[in-house]
Amino acid sequence: MVRALSRVGMNSAFAMQERAEGLGGMLLQDYSNVRAVTTALAGPLSQEDACVQSMPDASPAKWHLAHTTWFFETFVLEKYEPCFSPFDAAFRVLFNSYYNGVGEQYPRPRRGMLTRPSLARVLDYRAQVDDRMRALLANRGDERELNDLVVLGLNHEQQHQELLLTDVKHLFSLNPMHPAYNEGGNQAGRNQAGRDAARPHAGPLEWIAFEDGVAEIGHAGSGFAFDNEMPRHPVLLRPFQIASRLVTNAEYLRFIEEGGYEQPSVWLSEGWNWIRDNGLSRPLYWFREEAEWREFTLAGARAIEPGLPVVHVSYFEADAYARWARARLPTEEEWEHAAGSCTVQGNFLGSGLLHPAPSSAAGLQQMFGDAWEWTRSSYSPYPGFVQPEGAIGEYNGKFMVNQYVLRGGSCATPADHVRASYRNFFPTPARWQFSGIRLARDC
Amino acid sequence: MVRALSRVGMNSAFAMQERAEGLGGMLLQDYSNVRAVTTALAGPLSQEDACVQSMPDASPAKWHLAHTTWFFETFVLEKYEPCFSPFDAAFRVLFNSYYNGVGEQYPRPRRGMLTRPSLARVLDYRAQVDDRMRALLANRGDERELNDLVVLGLNHEQQHQELLLTDVKHLFSLNPMHPAYNEGGNQAGRNQAGRDAARPHAGPLEWIAFEDGVAEIGHAGSGFAFDNEMPRHPVLLRPFQIASRLVTNAEYLRFIEEGGYEQPSVWLSEGWNWIRDNGLSRPLYWFREEAEWREFTLAGARAIEPGLPVVHVSYFEADAYARWARARLPTEEEWEHAAGSCTVQGNFLGSGLLHPAPSSAAGLQQMFGDAWEWTRSSYSPYPGFVQPEGAIGEYNGKFMVNQYVLRGGSCATPADHVRASYRNFFPTPARWQFSGIRLARDC
Amino acid sequence: MVRALSRVGMNSAFAMQERAEGLGGMLLQDYSNVRAVTTALAGPLSQEDACVQSMPDASPAKWHLAHTTWFFETFVLEKYEPCFSPFDAAFRVLFNSYYNGVGEQYPRPRRGMLTRPSLARVLDYRAQVDDRMRALLANRGDERELNDLVVLGLNHEQQHQELLLTDVKHLFSLNPMHPAYNEGGNQAGRNQAGRDAARPHAGPLEWIAFEDGVAEIGHAGSGFAFDNEMPRHPVLLRPFQIASRLVTNAEYLRFIEEGGYEQPSVWLSEGWNWIRDNGLSRPLYWFREEAEWREFTLAGARAIEPGLPVVHVSYFEADAYARWARARLPTEEEWEHAAGSCTVQGNFLGSGLLHPAPSSAAGLQQMFGDAWEWTRSSYSPYPGFVQPEGAIGEYNGKFMVNQYVLRGGSCATPADHVRASYRNFFPTPARWQFSGIRLARDC
Amino acid sequence: MVRALSRVGMNSAFAMQERAEGLGGMLLQDYSNVRAVTTALAGPLSQEDACVQSMPDASPAKWHLAHTTWFFETFVLEKYEPCFSPFDAAFRVLFNSYYNGVGEQYPRPRRGMLTRPSLARVLDYRAQVDDRMRALLANRGDERELNDLVVLGLNHEQQHQELLLTDVKHLFSLNPMHPAYNEGGNQAGRNQAGRDAARPHAGPLEWIAFEDGVAEIGHAGSGFAFDNEMPRHPVLLRPFQIASRLVTNAEYLRFIEEGGYEQPSVWLSEGWNWIRDNGLSRPLYWFREEAEWREFTLAGARAIEPGLPVVHVSYFEADAYARWARARLPTEEEWEHAAGSCTVQGNFLGSGLLHPAPSSAAGLQQMFGDAWEWTRSSYSPYPGFVQPEGAIGEYNGKFMVNQYVLRGGSCATPADHVRASYRNFFPTPARWQFSGIRLARDC
Repeated sequence: MVRALSRVGMNSAFAMQERAEGLGGMLLQDYSNVRAVTTALAGPLSQEDACVQSMPDASPAKWHLAHTTWFFETFVLEKYEPCFSPFDAAFRVLFNSYYNGVGEQYPRPRRGMLTRPSLARVLDYRAQVDDRMRALLANRGDERELNDLVVLGLNHEQQHQELLLTDVKHLFSLNPMHPAYNEGGNQAGRNQAGRDAARPHAGPLEWIAFEDGVAEIGHAGSGFAFDNEMPRHPVLLRPFQIASRLVTNAEYLRFIEEGGYEQPSVWLSEGWNWIRDNGLSRPLYWFREEAEWREFTLAGARAIEPGLPVVHVSYFEADAYARWARARLPTEEEWEHAAGSCTVQGNFLGSGLLHPAPSSAAGLQQMFGDAWEWTRSSYSPYPGFVQPEGAIGEYNGKFMVNQYVLRGGSCATPADHVRASYRNFFPTPARWQFSGIRLARDC
Repeated sequence: MVRALSRVGMNSAFAMQERAEGLGGMLLQDYSNVRAVTTALAGPLSQEDACVQSMPDASPAKWHLAHTTWFFETFVLEKYEPCFSPFDAAFRVLFNSYYNGVGEQYPRPRRGMLTRPSLARVLDYRAQVDDRMRALLANRGDERELNDLVVLGLNHEQQHQELLLTDVKHLFSLNPMHPAYNEGGNQAGRNQAGRDAARPHAGPLEWIAFEDGVAEIGHAGSGFAFDNEMPRHPVLLRPFQIASRLVTNAEYLRFIEEGGYEQPSVWLSEGWNWIRDNGLSRPLYWFREEAEWREFTLAGARAIEPGLPVVHVSYFEADAYARWARARLPTEEEWEHAAGSCTVQGNFLGSGLLHPAPSSAAGLQQMFGDAWEWTRSSYSPYPGFVQPEGAIGEYNGKFMVNQYVLRGGSCATPADHVRASYRNFFPTPARWQFSGIRLARDC
Repeated sequence: MVRALSRVGMNSAFAMQERAEGLGGMLLQDYSNVRAVTTALAGPLSQEDACVQSMPDASPAKWHLAHTTWFFETFVLEKYEPCFSPFDAAFRVLFNSYYNGVGEQYPRPRRGMLTRPSLARVLDYRAQVDDRMRALLANRGDERELNDLVVLGLNHEQQHQELLLTDVKHLFSLNPMHPAYNEGGNQAGRNQAGRDAARPHAGPLEWIAFEDGVAEIGHAGSGFAFDNEMPRHPVLLRPFQIASRLVTNAEYLRFIEEGGYEQPSVWLSEGWNWIRDNGLSRPLYWFREEAEWREFTLAGARAIEPGLPVVHVSYFEADAYARWARARLPTEEEWEHAAGSCTVQGNFLGSGLLHPAPSSAAGLQQMFGDAWEWTRSSYSPYPGFVQPEGAIGEYNGKFMVNQYVLRGGSCATPADHVRASYRNFFPTPARWQFSGIRLARDC
Repeated sequence: MVRALSRVGMNSAFAMQERAEGLGGMLLQDYSNVRAVTTALAGPLSQEDACVQSMPDASPAKWHLAHTTWFFETFVLEKYEPCFSPFDAAFRVLFNSYYNGVGEQYPRPRRGMLTRPSLARVLDYRAQVDDRMRALLANRGDERELNDLVVLGLNHEQQHQELLLTDVKHLFSLNPMHPAYNEGGNQAGRNQAGRDAARPHAGPLEWIAFEDGVAEIGHAGSGFAFDNEMPRHPVLLRPFQIASRLVTNAEYLRFIEEGGYEQPSVWLSEGWNWIRDNGLSRPLYWFREEAEWREFTLAGARAIEPGLPVVHVSYFEADAYARWARARLPTEEEWEHAAGSCTVQGNFLGSGLLHPAPSSAAGLQQMFGDAWEWTRSSYSPYPGFVQPEGAIGEYNGKFMVNQYVLRGGSCATPADHVRASYRNFFPTPARWQFSGIRLARDC
C-alpha cells in the first residue's frame, strides 16, 4: 500500500525522518509524525483556550486532542490489543463524536463543559495510546486491515488538525481583545507574500477553457482515499471555463460596496432570508473600524489585504457573488477535471502562514491550498457508492444530504492530506472554515 | 405552440369542451377550464376553512385563490392592458408570494391573519380579472409572448390547485373532529380500488432493469415546460433496477414494527436528529386508536389500507426505508429515463379520489399519479440552465439549494400538468405533500 | 344576594328591562342581558374574523362565544340538569380553557385552527344552552348555590366580552388594510369627546393627597365579587398622592421624543432587555406615517389625539414612564383606597366608543373606565385567601405569580362588571389590553 | 459605623485577626479578609474550571474574581486615586456586569468565551488592585463616603462568593464524571451531621405560632444593609404559624412518590407548564441510579440523605409542595418577624460543609444558613424606597419585578453577610442556588 501520507507537519520540527524499512516501519513513522503535529498545534493554547467551545459546530481543542486518540483506541486497540483495557472507561462516551455503532455520545453542544479531564490528562491519554499503538504497529504493522485502519485514523486526525485551527480562530474572534494564535503570522505572511515592497497583490483573473467530453472522476490508484471519493466513474462534461485564481478581497469588497448584500436578485431565496434574518453584510471576521475594513486572523486583527483571496464566506455568499459577477460556481466534476492538470502544491498548513496568500502567476493557480472552494454540487453518493459496514461506515455516508462539496484544501490543511478527488463538505451557511470562491462559466 | 394543457378539471363538470379555432381560442378555453377548477376546489370550504393558515409552509385556500389571480393581473394585465387599473392596489403586496422583482410582500407566516378581504371579495377579484383576461385573450391571444405568459400562469395555477388540497388536508388534520373535505372519498376510493370484495391490495414488487448508456434528460419538444426542465442534455447512466410500483402501507408498517425508527444505522445523520428532536415514529397523518393504525385523509379518518402506497413521508423517511430495504432511492435521471417508456396516465386529481390507489398490475406501474416520488437528486440547475431575466426568473431558479427532486405527480395533481421531465422539489423534512417512495438499486 | 350585575349591554338594544319579581327572575333577566351582549359584540364580525387567532395570548371570537357557553353547560347544566346530555361531546375538550379539574384541553395556541365547528354551529350551541339555562333558572333560580354559579358565569362572560374586543383589535391591527370593527367609532368618539370645536384635550394633572393610616381593602358587602378580592383586610398606608387623571398621549409622546426608550436608567432591567430584544419604541398600535404619529383603533387608523389617555402600554413602559416623570405607579392598596371616594362611572363598553376619552374636569377623574391602570403590586393572594375546592378553584388562584394588578376597568369593560375592589392582572409585557398609566408619588 | 462584616472566611486560615485601631484600620482588615476568601474559594479550581460558563445565568469563577475587583477599581479607585490609571483599559467593559451608568458591557452569555485574560492575569489584577486599595484605605479609610463604598464592595464580593460556588456546582453537575469541588465534603458532612452512628436525621416538624399585630420590618440600626432593606416600616400581620425547620429530603421524596409532579391541582398554572415543558420531576441535581435516589453535591455524587433539607427547588416547586402539604409559603414580613427571635447562627460558608445539614433540635431552627427560603412575596420596593442616584443605584432597584424574595442565607453564604432583614431574590424557575422550603400556615 502506497499511502498518501507523507511530509506531515507544520514546520521543520515535524519534518519527515528517514523511513524505516518495510510497510509497518513507514506506517509507524507516519503515525508518529501526524500525532506530533496535532500536539504541536495545541502548543500555543493555554488550558483555558483548549477547553472552551465557542458554538455547537465547533469543538474545544482539548476535545480534538482526545477524540483523535479515542479513534485509535476504539477502532484499533480495542480490536487488536490482546488484553485491551481502556485508559479511562468514561472516555468511550465522552469522546465519541457521532458513532452510534459504538454507543452513546456526550452531547455535542456541551463539549465545552468538560473542564475535567484536564488538558494534562488528555495529553497523558495521547501519550499512553501512542505507546500502545507503536507497540502494536511494531509487531503487526504489515497486516493489511490494521494498516488500513491506522491510515484512516491518521487521515481522520489530519481533518481534526484543520478543525482545531478553525475552531480556535472562531473562539478567539469572540474576544474583543483579539488574541493572536500565531503571533508572527502577520509578519510571516507579509514576508512570504510580499513580492514587492508594498503589499501583496493578485494577478488579473483569466478564464481557462475546457472542452466537452467524458471525464473520469473519483479516486484512482492505490493510495489512500475516503470512501466518498469512490468509485471512480465517468461523467459527461459540457465545455466550460474556470477562473485562473480565487476571488480576491478587493473583488469581494466591490461586491459589498456596490450593494451586493441588498440586491435580492443575486441571491438564492434561502440565502436572502439567511442574510436578512442574521443581519449579515460581509464575510465572517470582517469588521469596520472607523473608515477601515479589517479582519480577524489567527495572527490577530489586521487591515484587509486587497490581493488576498476572500475567505470565510458561506455557500450562499459564494453563489451570490458568482451570480453578481455574471458567472457561476463550478460543479465538483468540472473542478476535479480541471485540477487533474495541477500538482498538489500550494499554501498549506506546513507554510505556517495559516492564512491565504495572493497569487500573481499566470495559468491555473491556487487549486490546492489557500482556501476550500465551494462547488455547486450537493454532497451525494457517487454512482455505485457502497457504505462500509459497521461504525466505520458512519464516517462519511450518513452526512450525504443538505451539504455542498468544497474542493482543494486550505491554508490549514496538511499538504499530504488532500488530492484532486478529495471531497470536503459543509452546510450552506457554514463560514468558519477557510472557504473561498472560484468562478466558472459556460462557454 | 402545442400546450400540455388539456382535460383540466376535477370531474366531468370541468371536462374539456370543443376547442375553438385558432391558438387564441384554445388558450381562452384552457384559461377558463383551469380557472374554473381552482374555484371548484374551494367549493367544499366554508369561509373559515378558506381563511386559516395551519403552518408557515401552508397557505390559506383564499390566499391561493387570490395569489393565482394576482399572477395574471400583475404579469399579464399590468403589461398588456392599455389602461391598467388594479382591482385593489393593496393586493399587489398582499398577494405577492415571493417576487422581489415586483416589490414588497406581506409576510408569509401571516397569510392566515387576512380575514379581510373576505372570501366573497376574493371571488369577485377572480371574476373581474377573468373578465379582463378573456377580453385580452379574445383580442391578442395569438401573440406568442402573451400566450407564453398565460400558459405559464395556468401551469402556476395548477400547482396551487395541488397545494390548496394539501394545505387544507394539513389544516383539517389538526382538528380533533376530523372533518372531511370530500365526504364521498372513502366510498369512492373503495369502489374504484376495490377489485376484489375485500380490500385493495398491491401486486408483488418486481424489479425492472435498465442498461447503462447515455440517456437524454430534460424537456423535449414544443409543449410547455418550466425553465428548470431545460436544457435537455445527455447523462451517463449505469445499469440500474427500479421497483415496479410504489412502497405500500403494509411494507412501511413492517419497517415501523421492526424498529426502523429506532435504528440509527438506517438513517442519514440529519434525519436521525430530526426524528428524535420531533419525536417522530410514523408518517404524517398516521395515528393509533386503540390497537388499530389509522390515518387522516381528505375523506376523514379511516383504517390504514395495507395495499395502498404509503404517502406523507419525508425525504429522510424515504431514504431510511430504502436503506432498511437494502435498496436506495432512484436518481432523477434514472427515474426520467425509466418513465420514458410510460404514458402519462394514472390516479390524478381528475379521479376525484384525492388519495393514492393500489396497483396490482404487472410491469412498471404508478410512475404518474398517486404519489410524488422522492429521488436522491438534490434540486440543482441543469447544465447550461439560464435563469430568465426579471421577476419571472424568480419562479424556479432561486430555490435551487437544499431541496430534493420529486417526480411523477400525485393524486392531487391535474393530469395535464405533469410529464416525464417535470421536476417538483421540497426540503427534506417536508411531509404534507402526497410524497411516497419508489425503490431503486444497482445491478 | 344582590348582584353587581345591572345595566349590561353595549347600547340601548341591550338596556335593562324591568326586573321580574324574585331573585330567580332577576337572574334570568341578567342572564339574558349578558348573553345577548356577547352575541351582539360578534355581530360586526364575518365568519373569517371570528375564526382566526392572531397570537397564542389571544383567542378567536368564535372561541369566546363557545367557551362562555361551555362554562354554563359544564359547571351548571352538567350538575343541575336531570338528564344532562351535551350539545356535542367533543366540545368538552375543545372549549375547555384551562380547567384541569374538568379534563384535557385543546392546545391554546391552536384555537384558531378550529374552522369547524362553524360560527353558525357555535351560535346554535349558544341558543340551545340558553334555552336549557332559562328552563333551569325558571324552575330553580332561587337556589343559592345555583344562583352563585350562574352569577359567576355571567361575570366570567363579561370578562370574555372585553377579551373578544381586545383580541379582535389585535387581529385587525395585523391587517395592512386596517379594517374597522366599529365604523362609526371615530366619529362617535369625536362627538362624545369633542367639548370644543377643535379636538379633545385633557385638563392639567393635579395631585390628590391621601393621609396615612389603616385602610380596609378587599370586597365588602353582599354583592358579587371574585374570590381574589377577598378576604377584606386592613392595610397600613403611608401618606401618598395620586394623579387626578390618566397620563395622556401628549405626555407619553414627550417621553418618547425626549429619548425615554433610549435611557436605560428609567427602565427596570428586564424591561430594558425586553424593549431592546423586541425593538420597541412606542405603544402597541402606534405607528408613523410620514411625519405623523398615528394609531390603530377599533374604528380604524387615525391620528394620535394628544388629549386622550395613552393605552396599550406594558407594565415595563408604565413603570419607565413613571420613573422618567419622577413619580411611581400606585400600589393596588393606594389605588383602592383612593377609589373609595369615587362612584363607578365612566367611559365603559356601554358608551360604544371602544376607545378612551379625555378628561378635563377637576378632581379625581377616570378612576373607572377608559383604561386599566397598572399598579406596582404583584398579583398575590390576600392574607387569609382560601382557594375554592374543585375546578372552579382554578379560576383565579393558580395565576397568582409573575403578574401585576391592574385596576379600574376600561372602555371595553361592561359598566356593571367592575368595582373598586376588582383586581385584573396581566404579565408585565402584555400590551394588547386597554392598559394605561396613572401616576402616584410619596409625600 | 459598625459593620456587619466580621469573621469572614471559609476556615481558620481566614479567621479574623486582631483588629487594628480605628475605623480605617478595621476596614482594612475586613477588606483583606473578604478578598482573601474569594481567592481561596477559587483554589480548588483548575484554569479550565475557572473559565467555563455553564449557562447564561451563571458566570465563570474567573469572571467573579475579576468582576469583584472591577467593582473596587471602578467605583472606588477611579474616584479616589489622584492619578487613576486602570490595570487594563479593556477590563472596564469586559468585567462590567450590568451597570449601564458605567457604560457598555461584554454580553453576559459570552462570559465563558474569555479564555484571555488568563486566570493568572486576573489574579495579578486582584493583587494590584488590592495593593492600591490598601494604600488608599491606609490614608483615607476614615472618610465616611469612601468607607461606605468599600463596605458595599465587600458585601458585593460576598454575594459573588456564594455565586462562585453555586456556579461551579452547576458546571460540575454537567460533567458525567461528577468531579468534586471539596473532596472531603462528604466525610466532613457526615461527621458534622452524624449525631448517631447511622445517618443524619431531622426532628419532627413543629408549628411555631405568632400573634397578629403591627410589626416593624426592614433594616434597623447603624450596621450595613443594602438599599432594598430600607426604609424600616410597620406592617400589619395576621396570626400565623411557621414551621420549626426546613422541609427535608424525605418529606419531599414523599411528595414525588405520591405523584406531586403529576397533579396539576397543586401547581400554579405557570409552574405546571414549566415542569411539563421541561420534563421535570425532581429537584435539580437529583437523579436515579438503578433503584437509588442520588444527588450531585459539591463533594460529588452521593445517596440522598433523608434527614437533610431539600435544596435546589424552584419557587414553583416550593409553592406546589406547600399546597400539597396543605400549607403555604410564608410572606417575607412573616419570616422576618419570626426571625427576629433568632440569632444569626447556623450552617454557613465557614463550616466548610457546602451542603445543608439536618436539624433535630426543638424550637425555631435553621432560620439562618443551610438553605435560602422561598417566600411568597414578590420582590418589590419597600414603601418609601428611594433608589440611589448614579450607577450604584442600579445595584438592586432595577431588578424589582418578576422575582421572589428568599430569606435567611445558605450553606454557601458568609456568616457575617446575612441578617434578618436581608432580601435575596431570584426568578421563579431558578434552582441552582441552595434554595429550600419552609412552610407557614394561617391559624
